[in-house]
Amino acid sequence: MGYLLLIIYNLLTPLIALGYLGFFIFSPRRSLLKYFFAELRERLFVPSTGAATGPAFSHATSAGELIPNSPSSSLQPSAFSLRPSPIWVHAASVGEVRALVKFIPGLRASFPGCEIMITTSSRSGRDEALKLSANARLAPLDFYPLTRAFIGKIAPRALIIIETEIWPNMLFCAGRAGVPVFMINARISRKTLVLYQSLAPLTRILFSGVKRVLAQSRLDAERFMLLPGLDGKVIETGNLKHDLMGASVSGVAEVSAFIQASGWDGQPIITAGSTHPEEEPILINAWLEAKKSAPGLKLVLVPRHTERIAETEAVLRGYSLPFARWSAGAVPGADCLLVDAMGLLQAFYAVSSICFVGGTLDNTGGHNLLEPALFSKPVLFGPNFKNAKLAGVALLKEKGGFLVGTAPEIAAKLSALLADPLYLKVSGENAAKALLSLKGATEKNLARLKASIPPWDTQSNLSVV
Amino acid sequence: MGYLLLIIYNLLTPLIALGYLGFFIFSPRRSLLKYFFAELRERLFVPSTGAATGPAFSHATSAGELIPNSPSSSLQPSAFSLRPSPIWVHAASVGEVRALVKFIPGLRASFPGCEIMITTSSRSGRDEALKLSANARLAPLDFYPLTRAFIGKIAPRALIIIETEIWPNMLFCAGRAGVPVFMINARISRKTLVLYQSLAPLTRILFSGVKRVLAQSRLDAERFMLLPGLDGKVIETGNLKHDLMGASVSGVAEVSAFIQASGWDGQPIITAGSTHPEEEPILINAWLEAKKSAPGLKLVLVPRHTERIAETEAVLRGYSLPFARWSAGAVPGADCLLVDAMGLLQAFYAVSSICFVGGTLDNTGGHNLLEPALFSKPVLFGPNFKNAKLAGVALLKEKGGFLVGTAPEIAAKLSALLADPLYLKVSGENAAKALLSLKGATEKNLARLKASIPPWDTQSNLSVV
Repeated sequence: MGYLLLIIYNLLTPLIALGYLGFFIFSPRRSLLKYFFAELRERLFVPSTGAATGPAFSHATSAGELIPNSPSSSLQPSAFSLRPSPIWVHAASVGEVRALVKFIPGLRASFPGCEIMITTSSRSGRDEALKLSANARLAPLDFYPLTRAFIGKIAPRALIIIETEIWPNMLFCAGRAGVPVFMINARISRKTLVLYQSLAPLTRILFSGVKRVLAQSRLDAERFMLLPGLDGKVIETGNLKHDLMGASVSGVAEVSAFIQASGWDGQPIITAGSTHPEEEPILINAWLEAKKSAPGLKLVLVPRHTERIAETEAVLRGYSLPFARWSAGAVPGADCLLVDAMGLLQAFYAVSSICFVGGTLDNTGGHNLLEPALFSKPVLFGPNFKNAKLAGVALLKEKGGFLVGTAPEIAAKLSALLADPLYLKVSGENAAKALLSLKGATEKNLARLKASIPPWDTQSNLSVV
Repeated sequence: MGYLLLIIYNLLTPLIALGYLGFFIFSPRRSLLKYFFAELRERLFVPSTGAATGPAFSHATSAGELIPNSPSSSLQPSAFSLRPSPIWVHAASVGEVRALVKFIPGLRASFPGCEIMITTSSRSGRDEALKLSANARLAPLDFYPLTRAFIGKIAPRALIIIETEIWPNMLFCAGRAGVPVFMINARISRKTLVLYQSLAPLTRILFSGVKRVLAQSRLDAERFMLLPGLDGKVIETGNLKHDLMGASVSGVAEVSAFIQASGWDGQPIITAGSTHPEEEPILINAWLEAKKSAPGLKLVLVPRHTERIAETEAVLRGYSLPFARWSAGAVPGADCLLVDAMGLLQAFYAVSSICFVGGTLDNTGGHNLLEPALFSKPVLFGPNFKNAKLAGVALLKEKGGFLVGTAPEIAAKLSALLADPLYLKVSGENAAKALLSLKGATEKNLARLKASIPPWDTQSNLSVV
């Protein structure tokens, strides 16, 4: 039954490809056809040594044409390219590849001398992957003969699938060839889960070659556990993306100079970062209220979209308060600053006593709640943080973040924190703790892979379909 | 004259190699000979396609023998290995390679799709380099015919030399072949400077192919500027090693639990990290003195060498104070903790109000002064910080670090900081600022390289000797 489904899927694949071609021919976006054919050459992987199978080769060709004196040897197979089989990493596109910025170097360090091949499902993803490994290309079309030939040719030591790329033939052929398959940073939507549950016989065959599913959250882990063929293989190891958070150097000196010039030295600052126009009046009101108990308090507004800065400026003018604009320089006596430049958010968080993260009081769903925690600062945010759920929950749990819904609530929390230096300090440290508690997914994933991917000398069970 | 010196050097090279061989044959470390011959094969680079020229090949061979079913295609030259010429990075050994942990991934991202080849001068360095690139090997012996053949074969897009690896033939042949040469994280000792100044005619020839020297400090930059052939090519870009500083996750939960169990919650802590036995009595006296004005102050001692922990314990017993040992768990009522485990230093810095870094009151010369700055904590240290000079100067300049020589001085600084929460907070932020001011060398180096290494399509001036 499962095999029948797989055969049906494979009979459909060429039809789908033809359908795409038809779509391009008759669509107004006909000019994209040239990309379609360029891609197709790469996706219809033909395992002959001479064929141009990747972008790397075409680079080399053009280089060779342009450099008459270039030794042709560099374009020829050489002794240097005789290496053991690579670890094959497959990621969908740009976002998934970017999540690997720390993981891929970690993989290199964990398997010294082993080449890392990255395949992607999109051209933009491949271009991003070339920044991580010179050996990056489009994955072959998920059509049994192609995928089988590809795996036979590469003979990968392991296949590591990122997030939610479940391609039937890729999983099936890798399993048949004895290539251990790992799904890491794994996530699965409710819809996909239901689909694969309803195709249980096929699902069982596909996932039988999977050694481990390292899920990015508790919820994803629980969903994967419901799929046939994955019993006892699912572990939660956290999200690789949290390990990418790091403090940036940019703007620190300029922000320091601004604070000196404004005479704000030694005064408490609240920075409201990534704010939207709907949120800014609430924040200004809260700040004015909090100033009654902490008269020295300064407000720094860093709106998310600089193109809407005029709206924010109009709001501020309505209060007839002196305020400074970053691009216009310090205004002596002004207690409020509107930042109309990019790339300064972290530098302002770093010099603040308390931070507010925007997109949480309107419908946006929250921006990066963890950035203030990089500098051990307490984080205030509104009730809508659905885009940063794990981060928000961790901050609240560790008491490094505080949920605030209205101007009076924000003002009360500001006053309470500023009135008690120890409370302020401990809250900041708790925020840092929350950030640390979310980190470490890279290490956990690598440790699991190191334990599960056999070293070359003992990997004697590899066979090819 | 310069060429004559180069010829003499090359006539001497085989003699030196023979001399080494003789040394091994007649030395009691004769057993090392097998390494000598294994290395020699790799160092006497012979550019024939069939020869085994690197460790990578021997891996492949053994893998092939062990896996009868493995497709031989993976060990054969394939279409996948047809790539443009690599960027060649040369580093001396383990220390220099480790300094590249952020630089190499940055280089990949700056030159997408370009292979990175790393050569080293030592076997241990090569093993470390394999963690950064599958294409890592020993550099060929610095003998004109070998080096010339190697560069002709590789046709590198650029040669990047790390720190102080000035090999005459490597520089000369790369220059002759039109390969742009960069020295990065460059440093040069007084002695080496004098040597190359006295060989001015040779030096001028060698450095004529160097495009840029990116020095790791002002002092090194000034020394390089004194060498012939480098006029206008030297810039100071900072030390790559400072970019490797990052907060670690380990031990945070355990340290938190210990503080709870000890009833230290909300009390100020001073952590004295990486201390040596000579420093510990001074620190204990200072802490007891500071407790007079800040009775809640706790002391955490994290000695550098756990094997000398018995000495520290004996000192503590001499004061007849209750103290806890980490491995034995919390002791209610104890205000002092002796940490007899590794890997917890950062976790303790993170929960401290003030930190002291050891090796600065004795003859050691200072351990890592910047670690407390990762958590925005003020740093106290003694006058001997010669091993961390740049870090110490930056901390003092930014007023995030304080020089203390005696127990009363330490006590006075502790009391002053603890008496004024704002002073404490600003000092901590200044320490973080000092750390940030030292960071960014990776970005600066990459920006220079991106501006100076021509993209493939326009690199038409490459020719081979």
